[in-house]
Amino acid sequence: MKQFDFWFSIGSTYTYLTVMRLETIEQQVGLKARWRPFSVRKLMQEMNNSPFVGKPVKEKYMWRDLKRRAKRYGMSLDVPVEYPLKKFDLANRIAIVAQQEGWCEVYVRAAYHYWFQDGFPAGDASNFVKSLKKTGQSFERVKQLAHSGSIDFAYQSATAEARALGIFGSPSFVIDGHELFWGDDRLEDAIDFWRRDAGAMHD
Amino acid sequence: MKQFDFWFSIGSTYTYLTVMRLETIEQQVGLKARWRPFSVRKLMQEMNNSPFVGKPVKEKYMWRDLKRRAKRYGMSLDVPVEYPLKKFDLANRIAIVAQQEGWCEVYVRAAYHYWFQDGFPAGDASNFVKSLKKTGQSFERVKQLAHSGSIDFAYQSATAEARALGIFGSPSFVIDGHELFWGDDRLEDAIDFWRRDAGAMHD
Repeated sequence: MKQFDFWFSIGSTYTYLTVMRLETIEQQVGLKARWRPFSVRKLMQEMNNSPFVGKPVKEKYMWRDLKRRAKRYGMSLDVPVEYPLKKFDLANRIAIVAQQEGWCEVYVRAAYHYWFQDGFPAGDASNFVKSLKKTGQSFERVKQLAHSGSIDFAYQSATAEARALGIFGSPSFVIDGHELFWGDDRLEDAIDFWRRDAGAMHD
Repeated sequence: MKQFDFWFSIGSTYTYLTVMRLETIEQQVGLKARWRPFSVRKLMQEMNNSPFVGKPVKEKYMWRDLKRRAKRYGMSLDVPVEYPLKKFDLANRIAIVAQQEGWCEVYVRAAYHYWFQDGFPAGDASNFVKSLKKTGQSFERVKQLAHSGSIDFAYQSATAEARALGIFGSPSFVIDGHELFWGDDRLEDAIDFWRRDAGAMHD
């Protein structure tokens, strides 16, 4: 059984597209992705990689492109949204809690839904409360856990693992623990690779 | 008749893919793109936008992704190649000459062919001589013209036009003089837009 890892940070704009279409693709393809939250912001800062912040021409294009891509996929969205996220790390630490407890997908989809469709930034209390409600989890319990040392450790460890895999952006897809694809627009390439014998590409 | 403008700089790596597949796509779709050379380097420097230089993790991924994409399209290539180009501006000023005289596509395809398949960097004399031979042009005449003030003016003017269109990368596609698509992986989106009534997207 070949692995398909979906590495992401809540806060990435194009990750919205993957989060919203992955479940349908999984059903069509017969695939189950492992959802892996990490801090793309930390890795981008280490690499001095800032694709949009401080680059208004690129950012303006990104919203336009995102809108066109969402339309192509039949998705709703109301952009530009607040960006970059103020509570980036909290949004992702909650995703780490969710991953450990098995409600990651529901939480991340809800967080993106409320951010991109209703204008409540992920990580903010307004989004947190609504998203947690969708998961059936206790707000107080999750908030406390998300701030704990063990969750921080798991978050830093996941980010270190992403760094070791050569990941530098979100969304990223890693097949068989080594073959890296970056960007929602490479999801189909990643699936094709996952379908084939991975050995055939080692040329 | 809707316009389809292909804005490019010789020196961009992903532009290789578009240069090599555009003719086939044009025939399939019944489209004729206008080839528009400009200096993406100048615009990127203005925006402090450096996607690969100084970012070895991203650059390593880029070659891998380019190789996979080329394989997907059935193209040959032998990468990594020399990058970034030392004689970037000369390669593109020759493209301006070629555009004015009607042999731009043949020259650019040849320049990329010798760079990406045979290892002769575009802009270098070795590539220049081979590529010009394909076009049937005189080496001495074109060299002199490429260094002239009028070609420099046309090159700077094209770059200013690209800036005004919001272009920040190569390849870029502009439909009807305003709708911008960036990246070889958006060529299909650009074609779909070109096919539809442009008015429908003005929401």
